[in-house]
Order: sequence, then structure tokens, then C-alpha cells
Amino acid sequence: MADGESDRKRLESLEDLGDGAAYAGSIFGLVNESQFFVDFTREDIDILASYMHIYRARPQITILQEGEIGDYMLMLIDGEVDIYKANRIGGQQYMTSVKAGTTLGEMSMIDGASRFATCIALRVTTLGALTRDDMGRIIHDHPSLGAKILIKLVTLLSQRLRQTSAQLLQYIK
Amino acid sequence: MADGESDRKRLESLEDLGDGAAYAGSIFGLVNESQFFVDFTREDIDILASYMHIYRARPQITILQEGEIGDYMLMLIDGEVDIYKANRIGGQQYMTSVKAGTTLGEMSMIDGASRFATCIALRVTTLGALTRDDMGRIIHDHPSLGAKILIKLVTLLSQRLRQTSAQLLQYIK
Repeated sequence: MADGESDRKRLESLEDLGDGAAYAGSIFGLVNESQFFVDFTREDIDILASYMHIYRARPQITILQEGEIGDYMLMLIDGEVDIYKANRIGGQQYMTSVKAGTTLGEMSMIDGASRFATCIALRVTTLGALTRDDMGRIIHDHPSLGAKILIKLVTLLSQRLRQTSAQLLQYIK
Repeated sequence: MADGESDRKRLESLEDLGDGAAYAGSIFGLVNESQFFVDFTREDIDILASYMHIYRARPQITILQEGEIGDYMLMLIDGEVDIYKANRIGGQQYMTSVKAGTTLGEMSMIDGASRFATCIALRVTTLGALTRDDMGRIIHDHPSLGAKILIKLVTLLSQRLRQTSAQLLQYIK
């Protein structure tokens, strides 16, 4: 896929494990080790999981590709993912690795802009996908859970922005 | 006030212009020049304004102070504000100036962490304050407007994070 194309086909090429409801228990097991899920009750997770769809990626599969357009976020339920950014000489700069409980692609889910980084499965990885349409349905059907998820996204982005800005200030001063 | 103290007293020391409802027209007039308010209908603004409280700051007044704890955001309705960050040698680094339509302090409103920058009125400035409690009431009383405001906050933070991360990558590669 070229820059600017939707990456929904990338999601659909993964192994389809079906509806998220069957994974609510696994997701609830991550509550204590996840920045995203902390404060979520079992009922919250049961509802959220029922709007998700679950996929499995084999090792070395590119799950998200920097520059592609996306409209869904992913929650790592099991496995491990490496994150890369393109550098100025056309190569891939390794940024970090993330494990179960981490969310990926939240910014594109909300603002529809292109994927900010490339995410590659390091080992067999189970992912829950939540599309912008799914998020809209949660907000409509369960407004207080919708607000809770949105507040969590604002909090996560605030933390990342504070960290990134603090790093940047080390360079520009 | 020292670092870690709430800055609510700072807000209360400004000139109190009363309830936001009387300013709905002025705020609606900013819709087209504001990243925050774009897509808001007149009805949205009427409701939002009714949960806000309006203050006026004289020139040179420090509206927000980096490091203080805050639980409200501010919308610039009129005037101009300079933004500074502390530098490593104890001085103030000028970052930028912002005008009517800009929001300040959204991150602290949501996550309760300390103010990220210092904001000083450059001239007489009118501000609408929205506290975390006000935001909670909007979400409770008007869930779809609450979700719209939260989605706007996620979008703004995503944009800033993309910009800041892109700047940072220029230095670390």
C-alpha cells in the first residue's frame, strides 16, 4: 500500500479470531498492567470488548505502516510489537517495543490522519481492533463509557505530549 | 504560589465578568478562526458557554504558571497571551503568542498534572474558564456535546504530539 491509502486491508489480511466478547476475560486480566485500562470495571471491559474484533498477527508481519491512512486503534492482548519511524536516509529507526495492555494507532482512529509509526509483530500477537465507527457506536449506546474512553485517550496523549515536549526542550535550549 | 499548589486562587484573583452564557455570541464569533470550536453549532456553544465562567486579565498578569497544579482550561475570547517555558538556567524562554479562539491548560483540566507552561497576558484579555467539574457536568447533562468536546481535545493533542514528535526526530536522528 502507498502513503495515503487506507490500511483496513492490512487488518483484514490478519488471521480473524472473531468477536471481541470472547476475549473480555483476557482483556480484563490486563487492567492492572495497562495505562489504558486502569480504572475500567469488568462491566466496562465486557461492553468495550463486545465492540472490538480480534486478530492474530504472525511474527514479522507489519501491523501498521507509517504514512498509511487508518481509522482504527489496536489493543495488544498478547504478544509483542516493535515500533519504527522512517529516518531521513530512507531507513527504519527502531523506537521501542511494546507488550500486552498497550494501545496503538489511537491518534488515527480519532483524527483520521496518517499512521505516525510502523508497528511490526515481534512474535505471535493477538490484537483487538476498535474502529472509529465502533467508537461512535459506544458513545451513542453507552455515553458514560464513551466519555471514559475519550478521557483516557486525552490523558494518554497529554502524558506523551509532556514527555515529548520535555525531550524536545533538552535539544532546543 | 509554589510548585504543586493549586492555581485556582490565581483564577479567582482575576476580574470576575460572571457567567459564560452572556458571552456565547462572542465565543460563537470565534468558531471560524479557532481550531477548537470549528464544527461547533450555535446550540453547542450556547450550552458550553453556560458552563463556563468569564474572567478578565490586565496586561502582564500571569494567568497560568508552569509547575502549579490546575484543574481548569481557559479559552481566549479576546486579547493576547504570551507563552513561556522555564529554561535550564532559571530564566523564561519565550515560546509563542496566542490570540482569541485558542485554548490553554486542557491537559491539566483532564489529567490533573501540573501546568506545562507559563501564560502571561500581553494586553487586556478575556478568558472563559471550564473546570474539570464543569466538564463532568457537561458529560453528564449533554453526553453528545461532552463527547464532541473530548474528541476535539484528543484531536488537538494528537496534532500537537505529531508536530512535537516530528520536531524531536529532527534532533535525535
